[in-house]
Amino acid sequence: MPNWICEVKEILPLEPGWRLIARQRLKEQTRPEGSLGLLESFIERLVAIQKKERPEIERKRILIFAADHGVSEEGVSLYPREVTKAMVRNFLNGGATINALARYIQAEVCILDVGVDADFEADPRLLSAKARGGTRNMTREPAMSLEELDRALNAGWDVVRKAKEEDVQILALGEMGIGNTTAASAVVAALTEQDPESVTGRGTGLDEAGLLHKIEVIKRALQLHEGFLKDPLRVLQCVGGYEIAAMTGAVLAAARFQIPAVIDGWIVSAAALAASRLNARVLDYLFFAHQSAERGHRLLLKMLEVEPILNLSMRLGEASGAALALSILEAGIRIYNEVSTFAEAGVANRQSRE
Amino acid sequence: MPNWICEVKEILPLEPGWRLIARQRLKEQTRPEGSLGLLESFIERLVAIQKKERPEIERKRILIFAADHGVSEEGVSLYPREVTKAMVRNFLNGGATINALARYIQAEVCILDVGVDADFEADPRLLSAKARGGTRNMTREPAMSLEELDRALNAGWDVVRKAKEEDVQILALGEMGIGNTTAASAVVAALTEQDPESVTGRGTGLDEAGLLHKIEVIKRALQLHEGFLKDPLRVLQCVGGYEIAAMTGAVLAAARFQIPAVIDGWIVSAAALAASRLNARVLDYLFFAHQSAERGHRLLLKMLEVEPILNLSMRLGEASGAALALSILEAGIRIYNEVSTFAEAGVANRQSRE
Repeated sequence: MPNWICEVKEILPLEPGWRLIARQRLKEQTRPEGSLGLLESFIERLVAIQKKERPEIERKRILIFAADHGVSEEGVSLYPREVTKAMVRNFLNGGATINALARYIQAEVCILDVGVDADFEADPRLLSAKARGGTRNMTREPAMSLEELDRALNAGWDVVRKAKEEDVQILALGEMGIGNTTAASAVVAALTEQDPESVTGRGTGLDEAGLLHKIEVIKRALQLHEGFLKDPLRVLQCVGGYEIAAMTGAVLAAARFQIPAVIDGWIVSAAALAASRLNARVLDYLFFAHQSAERGHRLLLKMLEVEPILNLSMRLGEASGAALALSILEAGIRIYNEVSTFAEAGVANRQSRE
Repeated sequence: MPNWICEVKEILPLEPGWRLIARQRLKEQTRPEGSLGLLESFIERLVAIQKKERPEIERKRILIFAADHGVSEEGVSLYPREVTKAMVRNFLNGGATINALARYIQAEVCILDVGVDADFEADPRLLSAKARGGTRNMTREPAMSLEELDRALNAGWDVVRKAKEEDVQILALGEMGIGNTTAASAVVAALTEQDPESVTGRGTGLDEAGLLHKIEVIKRALQLHEGFLKDPLRVLQCVGGYEIAAMTGAVLAAARFQIPAVIDGWIVSAAALAASRLNARVLDYLFFAHQSAERGHRLLLKMLEVEPILNLSMRLGEASGAALALSILEAGIRIYNEVSTFAEAGVANRQSRE
């Protein structure tokens, strides 16, 4: 167990007083009450997390957790394993989709190698916290040892604690790892006791036969580890991935250190689910970026009782949905900080007619 | 009839060649094919509208069409008529929600007074093209004369032609007008032959009794003008509004002059519907920002066979949804222009395994 695990109990609920302050200001601004819809609830939570009259999410950091997966040898992805490494290089060279988005929303990008099967040149934007060069094949043995699980959880916790120390105001969590939709589906199936069929999708674009094979692989893995799948940490150990474990640690730390965190798609949501099983309060600090095209994501968001910000049938990963959603949240904060009240603008509010 | 009405026939379809170029480039970028979901179809259309290897939507203009409504004397809104005028002043003072959003996405805001029941001081950001100081009460007589309809249509057409001359690269269309959800519902009901019940919503927040009254008012108006509601221009004249007519002209001009236009919510969608009845090709040039909370909007988007960019239950108007959606489109263009291809990045594409 990581040495911070007792701190997970100390995650604070949002202060109702701050939510009230936010709701009141939203109501006084020159708009019909409630007319920003869901955006208002996001703004309320951001205010309550930051506990500031005028919240700020200017300092944005995108964390991309990268790792390889032993299960990829079962042929569960259209892409070869080497793509994880190549995409990490692409991130560092600024050539990936997330780089274009990060430049657009003016966010830093930080890559965490928590288990890529490759060595990289030193780079200030690449944090090396490798648990091992890829998990083991979960259909034959646990994906990782308990010690490796700890290392991965720690990596996620530490990088968020560091972000807090550096006054980062909002995080976007994303991932890269060939084979990781398989691990995420196994984690979600185990934690929610859903049939693998209903929480397994096509990943990067499997055809029907590929999807059926992937489901069969997940079933085999779950069968092998049956009896060990009762608690979330064991689930991560047996059928998870290093990046999924690290993001679980990151989500817990975001809640513990009160930094809002935007959750990207299917795989990051699986980590958020695992974290929520350790302490359901983490959900107060999370913003689910989008409902992805991956089968099962809609169901998972529903089970978590959260509303996604976007629904564009994206399925890329690498924090791409999180970056887009973050810009919607930032727009919300700008509205909250800048719009005049009815009194300031001399506009009649509806109350004036009653 | 406006003298440009024959030009409406000359609206060009998008060139399949440019769509193909866009699709090809999206496919070659370092991402699984199709993984940006709906965003890819938006990017494709933007490329085909601009006909450029590297499209640009840096120069953005938000057009807000403001007008008053005679039907407001039937008590169909929670807010008094004077709020239209007060909100126009708020826009000019930079204190409204759309101003905060415009600053955030770095867009110009231009207000068109096409029928506000008030006079304003001269202001470079306010274009005066008043057809009349508010429509007539549609439950008693046609909302406007044919001459006023022409004036309103012209105002919208001209402001878009001017934007084209000034090299504006994308438009966001929005509106302000107490009572205008009523006019929009009447227009949609007349054009789609839907029952007013299914296309009438709570506007700025009516309760159940208010909603029933609003539906009854719309039914009365439609009954009065029955027999005149066969063509879209007549519908606008009898039960429309000056801002709805002007936005109809603006949508037609956007398509004619090949500028992409982001359609805000319920009221702008009603104008887009009217324009699409004059030439269905306008839809190629339109991007529907969001599915609003207004009852009927979902149905209307479905009838138009368009996918909204956002779905946040917003119901503010004033181009607020359009501004948010525009930032998603701009992010899409940044991705299209900046992301490396598999070949450039040295990443293995799935084809390499086949």
